Amino acid sequence: MRILVVNVNTTVSVTEAIAASARAVAAPGTEIVGLTPRFGAESVEGNLESYLAAVGVADAVARYDQPFDAVIQAGYGEHGREGLQEMLDVPVVDITEAAATTAMYLGHRYSVVTTLDRTVPLISDRLLLAGLDRRCASVRASGLAVLELERDPDRAVTAIVSQARKAVEEDHAEVICLGCGGMAGLDEKVRAETGVPVVDGVQAAVTVAESLVRLGLTTSKVRTYAAPRRKQIHGFPLEEK
Amino acid sequence: MRILVVNVNTTVSVTEAIAASARAVAAPGTEIVGLTPRFGAESVEGNLESYLAAVGVADAVARYDQPFDAVIQAGYGEHGREGLQEMLDVPVVDITEAAATTAMYLGHRYSVVTTLDRTVPLISDRLLLAGLDRRCASVRASGLAVLELERDPDRAVTAIVSQARKAVEEDHAEVICLGCGGMAGLDEKVRAETGVPVVDGVQAAVTVAESLVRLGLTTSKVRTYAAPRRKQIHGFPLEEK
Amino acid sequence: MRILVVNVNTTVSVTEAIAASARAVAAPGTEIVGLTPRFGAESVEGNLESYLAAVGVADAVARYDQPFDAVIQAGYGEHGREGLQEMLDVPVVDITEAAATTAMYLGHRYSVVTTLDRTVPLISDRLLLAGLDRRCASVRASGLAVLELERDPDRAVTAIVSQARKAVEEDHAEVICLGCGGMAGLDEKVRAETGVPVVDGVQAAVTVAESLVRLGLTTSKVRTYAAPRRKQIHGFPLEEK
Amino acid sequence: MRILVVNVNTTVSVTEAIAASARAVAAPGTEIVGLTPRFGAESVEGNLESYLAAVGVADAVARYDQPFDAVIQAGYGEHGREGLQEMLDVPVVDITEAAATTAMYLGHRYSVVTTLDRTVPLISDRLLLAGLDRRCASVRASGLAVLELERDPDRAVTAIVSQARKAVEEDHAEVICLGCGGMAGLDEKVRAETGVPVVDGVQAAVTVAESLVRLGLTTSKVRTYAAPRRKQIHGFPLEEK
Amino acid sequence: MRILVVNVNTTVSVTEAIAASARAVAAPGTEIVGLTPRFGAESVEGNLESYLAAVGVADAVARYDQPFDAVIQAGYGEHGREGLQEMLDVPVVDITEAAATTAMYLGHRYSVVTTLDRTVPLISDRLLLAGLDRRCASVRASGLAVLELERDPDRAVTAIVSQARKAVEEDHAEVICLGCGGMAGLDEKVRAETGVPVVDGVQAAVTVAESLVRLGLTTSKVRTYAAPRRKQIHGFPLEEK
Amino acid sequence: MRILVVNVNTTVSVTEAIAASARAVAAPGTEIVGLTPRFGAESVEGNLESYLAAVGVADAVARYDQPFDAVIQAGYGEHGREGLQEMLDVPVVDITEAAATTAMYLGHRYSVVTTLDRTVPLISDRLLLAGLDRRCASVRASGLAVLELERDPDRAVTAIVSQARKAVEEDHAEVICLGCGGMAGLDEKVRAETGVPVVDGVQAAVTVAESLVRLGLTTSKVRTYAAPRRKQIHGFPLEEK
Repeated sequence: MRILVVNVNTTVSVTEAIAASARAVAAPGTEIVGLTPRFGAESVEGNLESYLAAVGVADAVARYDQPFDAVIQAGYGEHGREGLQEMLDVPVVDITEAAATTAMYLGHRYSVVTTLDRTVPLISDRLLLAGLDRRCASVRASGLAVLELERDPDRAVTAIVSQARKAVEEDHAEVICLGCGGMAGLDEKVRAETGVPVVDGVQAAVTVAESLVRLGLTTSKVRTYAAPRRKQIHGFPLEEK
Repeated sequence: MRILVVNVNTTVSVTEAIAASARAVAAPGTEIVGLTPRFGAESVEGNLESYLAAVGVADAVARYDQPFDAVIQAGYGEHGREGLQEMLDVPVVDITEAAATTAMYLGHRYSVVTTLDRTVPLISDRLLLAGLDRRCASVRASGLAVLELERDPDRAVTAIVSQARKAVEEDHAEVICLGCGGMAGLDEKVRAETGVPVVDGVQAAVTVAESLVRLGLTTSKVRTYAAPRRKQIHGFPLEEK
Repeated sequence: MRILVVNVNTTVSVTEAIAASARAVAAPGTEIVGLTPRFGAESVEGNLESYLAAVGVADAVARYDQPFDAVIQAGYGEHGREGLQEMLDVPVVDITEAAATTAMYLGHRYSVVTTLDRTVPLISDRLLLAGLDRRCASVRASGLAVLELERDPDRAVTAIVSQARKAVEEDHAEVICLGCGGMAGLDEKVRAETGVPVVDGVQAAVTVAESLVRLGLTTSKVRTYAAPRRKQIHGFPLEEK
Repeated sequence: MRILVVNVNTTVSVTEAIAASARAVAAPGTEIVGLTPRFGAESVEGNLESYLAAVGVADAVARYDQPFDAVIQAGYGEHGREGLQEMLDVPVVDITEAAATTAMYLGHRYSVVTTLDRTVPLISDRLLLAGLDRRCASVRASGLAVLELERDPDRAVTAIVSQARKAVEEDHAEVICLGCGGMAGLDEKVRAETGVPVVDGVQAAVTVAESLVRLGLTTSKVRTYAAPRRKQIHGFPLEEK
Repeated sequence: MRILVVNVNTTVSVTEAIAASARAVAAPGTEIVGLTPRFGAESVEGNLESYLAAVGVADAVARYDQPFDAVIQAGYGEHGREGLQEMLDVPVVDITEAAATTAMYLGHRYSVVTTLDRTVPLISDRLLLAGLDRRCASVRASGLAVLELERDPDRAVTAIVSQARKAVEEDHAEVICLGCGGMAGLDEKVRAETGVPVVDGVQAAVTVAESLVRLGLTTSKVRTYAAPRRKQIHGFPLEEK
Repeated sequence: MRILVVNVNTTVSVTEAIAASARAVAAPGTEIVGLTPRFGAESVEGNLESYLAAVGVADAVARYDQPFDAVIQAGYGEHGREGLQEMLDVPVVDITEAAATTAMYLGHRYSVVTTLDRTVPLISDRLLLAGLDRRCASVRASGLAVLELERDPDRAVTAIVSQARKAVEEDHAEVICLGCGGMAGLDEKVRAETGVPVVDGVQAAVTVAESLVRLGLTTSKVRTYAAPRRKQIHGFPLEEK
């Protein structure tokens, strides 16, 4: 089984970290292919960049010329998942949703700890749309930018743990979701410090994608995610530079 | 006051119809400028096309090199409004929301009549996110594609009236919103046939945009719609072809 | 175009302040007529007074013997709007709702800062009924009574700014609505102190009313707001004293 | 114990029917006093009339000069209950709410069958505000006006049973609430025809009021229902004619 | 009229206290019979114990061989009420719901103060299922275990009052529900300390049960609470030991 | 990895069918152990039987004396999952929830087709509690009892397909969940007839359980699902017969 794990930003080192994290939980026989968009921002921390990412991710997948069995969109709270579902026949899994459905099996309520305060509403909005908001206790910001996570993992853990504790103590969360693709690998440390289960969205998404493939289930094509109608499109897929 | 009315598809004749409709209600002294994206689909009828539109619209606005006072995104149920709000200091008005807030002043519940069945969930999702869903009685599809509206306005009116009547009689709507930028100009006929107020989103949006400008109000920049952080972006604004 | 701006209390100086505020944003050609009820309380700060206001406002409008194009009910969180909609053919705009729909174009969430703590639930209830509650971050009380606002505007600004800041910092509001007709004119100062857009309900309502008139839209009469059935009524309109 | 049962319309025969129905279930030692407003409409079938009723009912209670232990507002879906709660120290029970809380003990979901279609939204709105809407399956209109119920009880039963059956079969209601004070006495017939429990709001309210008195519980005065502040009121209580 | 008041735990002294509290408000002619399950935990403070209680309570009622008119399940936030409703023809009243519907007549919002933090989600879940959550301001834990309440009532009052005050001041509750059957008799003291109405669930349930019986209303049998189908059951009612 | 798949009824042939279905999708190295409760009903079709099942399942698991890695509760819409979560350290997966979270990856809205009409509210209630209701389009009953499914699979498919079609056409479901553990093996036929993805809850639960184990995630013990406190329990685990 081959699963494409698509980064939402254009930073190759983030793609590599995400793919490594995915491989760490992939089943034997699952091949993880990391893709990096050629279009968009080096880090996605807002709506405009997230809309660019939606197109960048769709382009990266459209351009991939080998067979694959599922796609993971590895951005937390980002736009674009529904477009991929129209474009493809294979399952598409968003890490925001994979983290949430996984967390909901582990506790009565969960919280998300993300990067900057400005991305909190994006995540809340995606959870609302996905119908996964009712048991979300809070979305909290660590105050760290996406690329700072990579540069200073220790500071990242400290900031995330601080918010995770507040989520548990003040918001009554029982599970923490790490709300950024770039937080891959920090889950163990946060779990050790907070004493609650910590869900990494990328790893959760790998198991969801594998599960859907194993169950032989694919995206419903009767309505919302039917293939796009045949029509004239300008500029997509993006032209070669 | 200059208001940019941005079509979400690449069909110039639709832009012209939208702009004409906007001008018909614009206040004296308001200049309406219609913009057509260079990127995206000739008609937007699904999520993938809608994500392309988000980027196409942002690009069209970024490329516009004259001063302006407000922007109207003239697609019903489309992605992208939040990105424009980050990118700009002037007010941004989505016609889906303008139609809804206008309708809510006129009746206890409103319905939207749109084009294809597949676009119904997009509109419902946007109303949910905007917090304008509680008094939405239904979103109904006429079964007509966007470009069919333009080609056969009589058939369009018949199909829209049929669904509007069901919305009033079965779903208890008291107001109808025309759920497609391309339905501009059909409101009078639908009103005559159904006996309830009919809201055209583009025209409603013109008055909302003018109102915000007149009140001196602009998008809040403290959190969700703060300007994008300075960072490396690949491929946007789109390159000249 | 003539718009009636109806105060909900019997204090003429408040009516005058409201009307002046309305005139400051009215379009050229819009005549603002301020009306003061003859029935009810000198300030409305609770449900009983608000129900009296509903009748006082309806009476004031019924008694007005010149043509008019729209009515604004200039009380925040008050009862009565639906009754006016039945009684009249022209649009009726409540300032609570006008402030909310305006605020929702400017930020992801808004808060209302009102007078006394006891009026908070009235405002919350009106927003819930209007279907405008989902993006309301909070309704906060400044602790000042309605008539204190007029007597001591400086203290009013201080108290309002204090709560507005909490709304932004603790409740994640991105826009503030001034939740009392008597706060007219304070918006600029609050905006300067908080750095977020501040919406004055009366001024917002003027632009909404003008917009509805300009769009040729009137209240739907098919169901909820149909004209009252012909029947015997005792004591209304109120007798001359 | 003395309970005031206040009709919302000015028709004395309706007051008498309501009071008789109340007496039929009152506990030994409970005195039921029926009050008829001097102000308002002969029947309440819309918002304007309902706002008049709010004042008419408050006036009737304010004018009553004997001691009493509780007040029942005997109109279905009407405005005014919160004002009475501020004005009085004794419990106030609205029959819309008493019917709903009673019904919720008897089945998973309940429906209300009321008079005219135009009153449906009033009832829905009151249930929403009261927080009793989640288990309401539907509010259905029999199409009969309030005073027609009195004139032709057989036709009333037929029309109510027809809608009650639809509520059970189509909306999955398991209990029916009779949604009009004037339907007093029809519950047995509707129950016999539909096979589900039928709740009469007036009778339910009598038992709720007696219960609150017996438990020694009165309206909370800490916030929403605190006594009105001392201030100048014009025209209320209404002047003697 | 005979009402069975069924304790959810196996501690006879708790049953006696509950029954005494029930008798204190029962109408003349109402006989209160306290039942203690033979199966389950000495105190119920979690889901597993609560599921055992559901079976223990059903067994205690099934085994009771005298006629009775209603059943009260005297556990706060416990499982099992729906099963009793299927098993019986007479009304079944859960004290969680009786406290909530009673509180909702007394204030705009209510809070529940319960025992241990771990039982908070159980109570929230029951209120959500019952459709009584919208006006619940909060569920707060005193930190005392069920059996500690009995052993040290003074400490219990202090801990409950402390949380009740926070509920009023921080969560804007206007009424307090005592969220444990074992808190019977503490309501007066908590009311004296907090100044808001305090509802004892057992006593509220007695009046609800009496009311339903007096109104001649019984559980709807058309769907959810129809009698169980005839089939083979192993081990229930529980065997004699 | 060993997963216990616990039937909720006492019919061994149903356990065997469920276990076989589970084995069909289990990963290599996963051992599926089917358990049948000794306590409860031969089929679970209502609340009382469901509460018995909660205890029967807990007893069956408590009595199992070998190590295991996860537990699947294989009843649709049944009580009990939260109790198992307290009792165990390993993950517990309810098939109602596993079907729902799986379906939500495949379409915008899903429906459940279950057995008897009386079980519809149980399923709706569980989805509400689990926070998975927002994207549930409907729960529909085929009208077949649990044990009829086994006796007459052809008739079962016909009845299920009929309701599944209505779910797609009338309720706008895009995915169907088979709402009974006893429907194992029917998914392929229903999918072929309806053209939409069909989710079998047992099979979905196997992949969820395996995923949680593989991710090293276990139930949060900080609050709701903390281990039961040490106390006296009567009669549980159930005595040997």
